[in-house]
Amino acid sequence: MNVTFLQSVFQYDGELMPNDRFLHWIGERRAAVKVEIEQRRFDQLQKWGFNPETGNLEHESGRFFSIEGIRVRTNWGLVETWTQPIINQPEIGFLGIITKRFNGILYFLMQAKIEPGNINYVQLSPTLQATKSNYSKVHQGKSPLYLEYFTGEKPATVSLDQLQSEQGARFLKKRNRNIILEVTGDVPVHEDFCWLTLGQIKKLMGQDNLINMDTRTVISGISFGTFPLESIELFRQFVQPSVGSGDDGKRMLLSALDDKRSRSSIEEIISWITGLKSKYELEVSRIPLNGVGKWVKTDTEIHHEDHKYFSVIGAQVHVSNREVTSWSQPLVKSAQEGLIAFIIRNIGGVMHFLVQAKIEAGNFDILELAPTVQCLTGNYRKGQSEYEVPFIQTVLEAPEDKILFKTMQSEEGGRFYREQNLNMIVEVGEEFPVDVPENFQWMTLNQLYAFIRFNNYLNIQARSLLAAVAF
Amino acid sequence: MNVTFLQSVFQYDGELMPNDRFLHWIGERRAAVKVEIEQRRFDQLQKWGFNPETGNLEHESGRFFSIEGIRVRTNWGLVETWTQPIINQPEIGFLGIITKRFNGILYFLMQAKIEPGNINYVQLSPTLQATKSNYSKVHQGKSPLYLEYFTGEKPATVSLDQLQSEQGARFLKKRNRNIILEVTGDVPVHEDFCWLTLGQIKKLMGQDNLINMDTRTVISGISFGTFPLESIELFRQFVQPSVGSGDDGKRMLLSALDDKRSRSSIEEIISWITGLKSKYELEVSRIPLNGVGKWVKTDTEIHHEDHKYFSVIGAQVHVSNREVTSWSQPLVKSAQEGLIAFIIRNIGGVMHFLVQAKIEAGNFDILELAPTVQCLTGNYRKGQSEYEVPFIQTVLEAPEDKILFKTMQSEEGGRFYREQNLNMIVEVGEEFPVDVPENFQWMTLNQLYAFIRFNNYLNIQARSLLAAVAF
Repeated sequence: MNVTFLQSVFQYDGELMPNDRFLHWIGERRAAVKVEIEQRRFDQLQKWGFNPETGNLEHESGRFFSIEGIRVRTNWGLVETWTQPIINQPEIGFLGIITKRFNGILYFLMQAKIEPGNINYVQLSPTLQATKSNYSKVHQGKSPLYLEYFTGEKPATVSLDQLQSEQGARFLKKRNRNIILEVTGDVPVHEDFCWLTLGQIKKLMGQDNLINMDTRTVISGISFGTFPLESIELFRQFVQPSVGSGDDGKRMLLSALDDKRSRSSIEEIISWITGLKSKYELEVSRIPLNGVGKWVKTDTEIHHEDHKYFSVIGAQVHVSNREVTSWSQPLVKSAQEGLIAFIIRNIGGVMHFLVQAKIEAGNFDILELAPTVQCLTGNYRKGQSEYEVPFIQTVLEAPEDKILFKTMQSEEGGRFYREQNLNMIVEVGEEFPVDVPENFQWMTLNQLYAFIRFNNYLNIQARSLLAAVAF
Repeated sequence: MNVTFLQSVFQYDGELMPNDRFLHWIGERRAAVKVEIEQRRFDQLQKWGFNPETGNLEHESGRFFSIEGIRVRTNWGLVETWTQPIINQPEIGFLGIITKRFNGILYFLMQAKIEPGNINYVQLSPTLQATKSNYSKVHQGKSPLYLEYFTGEKPATVSLDQLQSEQGARFLKKRNRNIILEVTGDVPVHEDFCWLTLGQIKKLMGQDNLINMDTRTVISGISFGTFPLESIELFRQFVQPSVGSGDDGKRMLLSALDDKRSRSSIEEIISWITGLKSKYELEVSRIPLNGVGKWVKTDTEIHHEDHKYFSVIGAQVHVSNREVTSWSQPLVKSAQEGLIAFIIRNIGGVMHFLVQAKIEAGNFDILELAPTVQCLTGNYRKGQSEYEVPFIQTVLEAPEDKILFKTMQSEEGGRFYREQNLNMIVEVGEEFPVDVPENFQWMTLNQLYAFIRFNNYLNIQARSLLAAVAF
C-alpha cells in the first residue's frame, strides 16, 4: 500500500481532473450554492435551548453536540486552574475517503461540500462525513452517499483506519475515525464529487481555505513506508518529480522514508513523552455551563469577560442549491485568527520537524504533539498575552525564500464560524540551535508517521500541517 | 540496545548469581523476615477512615490511595450499567530497573522485597519502586535506594521508558512509569539486591509467586528488534541455547524478531482496534463510595451482596527484619483465584498469540489487548457465571505436552491480599481454527512488542504473561 500512496503523492497533476479544470469545477460548485447565515438570539434558535438545570446549550433531541462546562486543574503553564465552556460531542465521527487505481495511479474521491461556518462555504471534503448513528444505521433516515462501501455492504479494502483527536482547546476528548478504502470495482461519481491524486490534494493545500480540515486529518495519516537508502536514491533519480528534486527534495524524501538517520530514536522520543506525561498533571471535570466563572452569557452570545479565546453564538442557516434547507445551530467563533507553524531544519542531511508537546484541556491523554508554534494571534501581540510563545519571532521574521508553505486553512465549518488559521512551514539554517527547550523535540517525517498510526499522539493542528508536506 | 537484551535473554543462568545460589539466597531473605497481617475492623485502622461526606475510605493525609466508587455504562457485554468500588491512586508510580554489562552480558539489578499482601511476603522486584513524590523529592523523607540513578544525579542511559496501565477492573486509570537504565560505572549492591540476566528472570518466572508483578510489567516492555531472516537463522544456529532450539524454538524466535510473516499487518490490527473502539462505549463517572449500590459495608469489609468479584478489608501489618515497622492499610481481597492464559498457534511457521480486546471499567481508553482467557475462577464454574468465557475449555483441557507455561503469579502485594492467578501458555495445533470471533486477533510477538511501546495498548495481565516468554 505504501508504494501506491508514494506513486500517487508524486503525481502533482491528475488525468481524471487536471488542476486547471479542477479550479473551474470548484468555482462552479461555489457558484451553484447560496448560503446565508444570520446571527440569532439564543431564544430564537429552533430546537436548541439552555437546559434549565445545568445551563448547558443542547439540542432538544439530545443529539448532535452540546455546549457544556469544564473545570481544569494543571501544573503546566502559568494558570493553575480555570473553568471554560467546551463542545461535548461524544459521538465518534466517521471521515472516509474512497480510493481507486486508474492506469496504476491511486486517485482519491473528493467531495465539494457545503459547510455553513466556512468562509467560502464550499471546500473539498472526504468522500464521506458521517456520524456513528449514520454509520451504524441507528436512524432510518437517508443514508449519506457511498456509506455502503464503509459498512462493508460493497467490497473494499481498508488501507488506513485510525482514531484521531480534534481540537483539544475546544472539544472534550472528541475523536474521529479516519478511514481510507481502496475499491477495485466501478464507483459511481455523483455530482459534487471528483477523483484527485494525493499529489494534487497536497498541491491544492497551497490555496487558501480549499482543502477542509476533515480531508487534511485523513490524508495526514498516510505513511509512505521505510526504505533502504539505495531505494530512496532510486526513487529520487527516476520517480520523484522535479518539483522537489535537488538537495532540498532529497532531505525531505529521506525524512519521510528513512528510519536510521534521525536525531533521536523512537525509544528516546517515547521516553521524552513518558517523562512529560509523568511530570504534568491535567485534571478535567465536567461541570454545568452555568457553573463556568469569568464567562458571560448574553441573549446573543457566551463570551469570556475579557472577550478572549472564543465565543458561542446562535445562527440561522439557509442553504439553497438543488433544494432549500434551513436550520438553527450554535457556532463557535474565535476571538482572533491563529498561527500554526512548523520550524524545520536540516540535521545530518535529513529534514527534521521541531515538535512541541502541548497540553490542552480537552486532550485525551494530557498532552499531544503539536506544531512548533500554535497560538491565537492575540498571544503574540506584545503585552497582550499571558504567556510568551517560543520561536514565534523566527516564524514571523522568516525571509521569503525560507517559507516553504504559507496559506490560510479553515477549521471545521460545521462547528466553527469562519475560523481560519495561518499555516506555515519555515526552514531554518545551521544558525538555529539544535538544542531546544524541554517540551520541544526534533523529529523526522518517518517518525511523525510512526506516531500518527497510534491513537492520540499528534494533535489536529500538527496533522493538518503535515498533510501539506509533499516531497 | 536490542542486541544487548537479546544476548541477555539467551543466558538462562548467570555468573554473578547462578540459579542454584539464587534459590538459596531468596530462601535466606525470606527466613530473615517476619510478617504478620491481622485483619482489623475499619474503625481500628490507624490514620485511615471513611470520609463523612462521601463514604470514601481515605488516608488522613490524603495521600497513598483511596477506595471510591464509579458508575459504569457500556454497550459491551450483558450488563449495561453498574456501580462498583475502585482503587483511586492518581499518583504515577515509578518502576525502575538498573542494568549493567559484565563481560559483555547485560545483568539486571533485582531486589528481594517485602510486600504485606504477598503469599510468601518476599518476591523479586525491580531495583526501584517509588511514587512520584519520592521521585520528584516533594517530601523530604528518606530516599529509596538507587533513586539517584533515575533522577539523573548519577549517570545512566535510558534503555526503556514507558507509561503502562494497571488492572482496569480494580484501579481507575492507574498508570506506572516503567524504566530500564544502563549504567557503566560501579554500582553498589546493597543487601537484598542481586544481579540476574534477563534469561534468568524469565526462567525464574517458572516458579510460583517469585517474580513480582512490577518486575513482570517492566521486563515485558523489552523488545528485541526486527531482523532479516538470514540474521535470525544465524542467531538460531550459533547463539540460541538448546532449550528453545528445534522447530519450536525457531517458530518462537521468528515470532519475536521477524516483521514480515504475520497473519495480519500492523495496519490491519490498528484498524481492528479502531473498529472496536468506535463500536463500544465506556462511560465511567466517579461517584462517592456510599453511592455504590449492591455492595455492602460492614465493620470489617466492603463486599458485593453476592460475595462476588472482590472485597476490601482492613489490615494491621507488622514487619520485622533489621527494624520493626507496623502500619494499618486497606487491602483488596479477590473472591476467587483467576485464570490468565494465552493460546498460541503456529501459523505459517511463525508462532502467533491469540489476543483478546477486553473492556474493563478502569481502562484509560475503552479497551486494552488482553490474554486469550482472563477471568475469575468463578466465571468458569458452569451455571455460576453471568457470561461464557470463550476458549476456556481449550485451556483447561490442554494435554500436558502442549502446556508451555503454567505457574501461579501474584498481583501487587502492596494493594492486594494474597491474590494469585494461574498463568498459562497453551499451544494448539492445526485443528484449532484460525478464524476467531470479532474481538480476538492473532498477533506475533514482534507485533505485540510494537504495540507495547505505545501507551495503554496491552493490559497488565497480557504484559505479565508475555514477560515469561523466552526463546
